[in-house]
Amino acid sequence: MAGMDKPVLALVGATGAVGSTMIEIMDSRESVPWGEIRLVASARSAGKVLRVRGEDITVLELAPEVFDGVDIAMFDVPDEVSAEWAPIAASRGAVAVDNSGAFRMDPEVPLVVPEVNADKVTERPKGVIANPNCTTLSMMAAMGALHREFGLEALVVSSYQAASGAGQPGIDQLYAEIEALAGKGAGNVSGDVAKVLTDAGVPVGSEAGSPFPAPLALNVVPWAGSLKDDGWSSEELKVRNESRKILGIPELKVSATCVRVPVVTTHALAIHATFSRDVPVEAARKVLSAQPTIVVKDDPAAGEWPTPADAVGGDPTVVGRIRQSLDFPNTLELFVCGDNLRKGAALNTYEIAETVAAAG
Amino acid sequence: MAGMDKPVLALVGATGAVGSTMIEIMDSRESVPWGEIRLVASARSAGKVLRVRGEDITVLELAPEVFDGVDIAMFDVPDEVSAEWAPIAASRGAVAVDNSGAFRMDPEVPLVVPEVNADKVTERPKGVIANPNCTTLSMMAAMGALHREFGLEALVVSSYQAASGAGQPGIDQLYAEIEALAGKGAGNVSGDVAKVLTDAGVPVGSEAGSPFPAPLALNVVPWAGSLKDDGWSSEELKVRNESRKILGIPELKVSATCVRVPVVTTHALAIHATFSRDVPVEAARKVLSAQPTIVVKDDPAAGEWPTPADAVGGDPTVVGRIRQSLDFPNTLELFVCGDNLRKGAALNTYEIAETVAAAG
Repeated sequence: MAGMDKPVLALVGATGAVGSTMIEIMDSRESVPWGEIRLVASARSAGKVLRVRGEDITVLELAPEVFDGVDIAMFDVPDEVSAEWAPIAASRGAVAVDNSGAFRMDPEVPLVVPEVNADKVTERPKGVIANPNCTTLSMMAAMGALHREFGLEALVVSSYQAASGAGQPGIDQLYAEIEALAGKGAGNVSGDVAKVLTDAGVPVGSEAGSPFPAPLALNVVPWAGSLKDDGWSSEELKVRNESRKILGIPELKVSATCVRVPVVTTHALAIHATFSRDVPVEAARKVLSAQPTIVVKDDPAAGEWPTPADAVGGDPTVVGRIRQSLDFPNTLELFVCGDNLRKGAALNTYEIAETVAAAG
Repeated sequence: MAGMDKPVLALVGATGAVGSTMIEIMDSRESVPWGEIRLVASARSAGKVLRVRGEDITVLELAPEVFDGVDIAMFDVPDEVSAEWAPIAASRGAVAVDNSGAFRMDPEVPLVVPEVNADKVTERPKGVIANPNCTTLSMMAAMGALHREFGLEALVVSSYQAASGAGQPGIDQLYAEIEALAGKGAGNVSGDVAKVLTDAGVPVGSEAGSPFPAPLALNVVPWAGSLKDDGWSSEELKVRNESRKILGIPELKVSATCVRVPVVTTHALAIHATFSRDVPVEAARKVLSAQPTIVVKDDPAAGEWPTPADAVGGDPTVVGRIRQSLDFPNTLELFVCGDNLRKGAALNTYEIAETVAAAG
């Protein structure tokens, strides 16, 4: 990115769910710092023409030479594709900003949330910068702001995760389940969800081809990701390990329980956060409100608190239900909602790319 | 209940949602200890004939004399009705077992979960015994069993509460919302839920007549009950105060966040429980499995964990996702599901009545 030319941006995975959101985000920006925008996808999608900021751009097939001349390459593709191709992009001179899980815990790859640790973008010996998991990201803006002021020590987190965390197949599955259950309202179907779905030809469970391991409509499923040691899910360990890395607190105590709920988009988190000193609610509100990427919605008397339906489609993290614990010292309870496709994926990746461009 | 006669039971609120579940429970019992069963309701429902254990019983209108000769009177009615009528039943010689919130925190009224503190049923100076709130009840069998073995010190709880916690109107509202949203699957409606519902004539928010303060379908709502001091909801304080009273741990540390989810019946809870000593997962499983009212469903490798759809309609509390915290000493994480209309209301009330009858 030396010289006077505007940096060249590549978007790899331009035709996927996160890629589409990325294009929406670029369309909605007043200005972008890019000289050229290249769209890249698999052979199947190459040749498609997508409109970005009023310009028609033909999607290129992923190949080493598409990265020639590229300054920043954003990757919104599966882990194994990133693992192979981000280093190729880096070897051709691009900074790879990767939204997959392939590099997040690599000690030579910074894991960045610009509001929290923008300074890390220049420490990238591999030429790769990673974007965090969407569940972790939903709370990082808020936790980063509070940590700077009050010194975070421990987190107990329960998630209410949306179907779109499993991509477009997750969205499609939830709608198919809702369709199948509608019209069954006269009886109480809540114990017969699986039967109603199966009778309607909607797959139930991973083996039948659902992206979820159990019915999700009229249900909640305390499982996301794959099984790790001692009964923990991969998603729960990501929340722990990525929070520690992003916040720069290697000893941060974290327990997470990740639960999928029948919401289309926006992850919600109930957070019990312990700090090194007392945090009055008003002080917490002030710190959170001062953060431009956070909206505080916290007035239960007026029916004001965050819900996924309020946060979806927006950039800010919505924070509310802020209470001091009655029995745990230096501890706050909060409820946080963040659009998992925007801040949880495309938006943060894009903000990292902007930060890299600004750093020159 | 002196003498050889079988005790006479009255069910006040026989025609309501919990009353109906109570009759189902009595129908499903192999035997019942009652000599006579009297059904009682408001003037509006008096005269109806309901079938209980194969016998047609005419519903009586609530009046002081319906309690004459009654040994145990179960109340499944609103707080204000219980507050007035439970003492009247007691003054006529009955033991009132009350499922409302009217007496739960009265120091002269025991708050009973038979698996945990059955011995308290005889300490009833007012002739009234209270049944706990359904959210608290969902975890008491499990927490009581673990407390006896390992000494409970602290609870951090996040709830996933069902629509039927708001009674039949809650169930009807959730179905109406699902109906209105079905067929809208082509677009992503998740941010437009309120608009879709309003356009379909489904009320949104308490002021419009919904039992919920925000859309519940395709959403979660971090609010249940009424506003208390410092931003806490009444439901969250009930979990704290009732857990302390039932478990007999006045200093128990409790933080709860209560969240309504689009599930018809069965409350789920993510629990972070700290004990006075180390609790290996196998030891916890053994203690929980030994409790007849608990089913341990905890094998993620086989896709086994509790969901509301599994627990609904059943008597046991289903417990799973049992993990030792990686960073908090002596701490377990668990996920618990309990049918809020059965163990959370009718079943526990009935079990209290059985316990009183057995105590003679």
